[in-house]
Amino acid sequence: MQRWSLGIAYNGTDWHGWQKQPQVVTVQSQLEQAIHRFLGHEVHTVCAGRTDTGVHALEQVVHLETELVRREVSWIRGVNSFLPSSIRVQWARPVDGQFHARFSAQRRHYVYLLHNAPHPSPFTQARAAWMFQPLKLQLMQQAAQILIGTHDFSSFRSADCQSHSPVRELQKLRITQQGEYFVFYFSANGFLHHMVRNLMGVLVYIGMGKRSVHWAQELLTARDRSLAAPTFAAQGLYLAKVDYPPSCGLPDHGLADLVHRHLGVKLC
Amino acid sequence: MQRWSLGIAYNGTDWHGWQKQPQVVTVQSQLEQAIHRFLGHEVHTVCAGRTDTGVHALEQVVHLETELVRREVSWIRGVNSFLPSSIRVQWARPVDGQFHARFSAQRRHYVYLLHNAPHPSPFTQARAAWMFQPLKLQLMQQAAQILIGTHDFSSFRSADCQSHSPVRELQKLRITQQGEYFVFYFSANGFLHHMVRNLMGVLVYIGMGKRSVHWAQELLTARDRSLAAPTFAAQGLYLAKVDYPPSCGLPDHGLADLVHRHLGVKLC
Repeated sequence: MQRWSLGIAYNGTDWHGWQKQPQVVTVQSQLEQAIHRFLGHEVHTVCAGRTDTGVHALEQVVHLETELVRREVSWIRGVNSFLPSSIRVQWARPVDGQFHARFSAQRRHYVYLLHNAPHPSPFTQARAAWMFQPLKLQLMQQAAQILIGTHDFSSFRSADCQSHSPVRELQKLRITQQGEYFVFYFSANGFLHHMVRNLMGVLVYIGMGKRSVHWAQELLTARDRSLAAPTFAAQGLYLAKVDYPPSCGLPDHGLADLVHRHLGVKLC
Repeated sequence: MQRWSLGIAYNGTDWHGWQKQPQVVTVQSQLEQAIHRFLGHEVHTVCAGRTDTGVHALEQVVHLETELVRREVSWIRGVNSFLPSSIRVQWARPVDGQFHARFSAQRRHYVYLLHNAPHPSPFTQARAAWMFQPLKLQLMQQAAQILIGTHDFSSFRSADCQSHSPVRELQKLRITQQGEYFVFYFSANGFLHHMVRNLMGVLVYIGMGKRSVHWAQELLTARDRSLAAPTFAAQGLYLAKVDYPPSCGLPDHGLADLVHRHLGVKLC
């Protein structure tokens, strides 16, 4: 039995999230069907981080097992030939039997792409959230400085979150502006359910001037989801990259390269 | 009667080109239906440059006439509310009765976006052509210098082309590389049918090293379409911008801004 890891990019627009479910079509169900057709036997995949309906991935990582021997390039081209074009295997790598896509992960990076312009573009509507109300970068950056660190993120946690603890270390929250686009980078060892989209809602309220920068601190202290802004749209959210120990031997594409490859924007 | 001009961006993936035709759904038919619903009466639109199936536009310009009075912002939001999200009005401007979207145009700019990477991205497949064979920027730039100027472009003209003359002045052909993306800029007073896609086919053959740079000169001299490379894919091609005399009073968004707004890449 050989364990394999795959790096998968997908546009989540057409799929009911990652996780296999009855009645609906998901990224996992599409991927497992394609691997089934490629290998000729059923497989079960485990992913690094489940994504919700409409959420994208630049590099989701999965693992699975098979007794069949295939070259890396055959995995990529073979599985892709059975996948819809909105899901694409980017790499394949044999891994140690101890490797686990979810539990071996040390850090996860999410990116949020927001198009801030008077009118939407037909080319970004499936890849970015759009809003016409002007946003102030500096206000959002000030709020980001408050949110970075180890906090109880209860105000940013979905009611459906199954995590034992609401405490997370938000290691990075960086916001850049390129013309009409704002790019938000979030890094943490782990995220609560809806945490990034709930943080986005609050950052955008602050960027619009609807609430003051200090509101970010008030929400951390209050630990009450009902006081924060609504969950922001799924369509600008990307699971961008998952970090593993170098000993796992996975390809290590830089976050900037992944963002540039798939989104066109440069990480400045 | 008031003549209006509209600037339209569209992703051509789902449409059978610009031109209204029986049996198929086109950008023009979608736009005219939406304007009909917005104004309450039928209209006929005239465009600056008809695009083929699968070809996109960053700023197609159209004109039409109505007796009804509407504000510019109502045109944009109203018509957009009746359009599919892959077609978006970007601006509206009242114009003189002499203005003609096609005949008043002085220059047209096309952009071609090419993703050159080992494996395709699910985020660019509807917006860029993809190829994995490595391309040499410098070779294509050398060929571009040969193609720029006033030439008989018979070798780059579709058999269906209805133009009286095969002579055109290719005023600009600039090629830039940004990471895995090549961006090609073509400017001319007018283009022959399939001219940009046929030029792309030849540039790519030269960039791959399949043909020498000198082949560009041979093809210009031969004036024989059958000697050139196949017509390149539609999905990377954009009608990017149309120039009119300043006296027409249309909004003048820079080409670089249009490319950055819709495609994310910067014009360097």
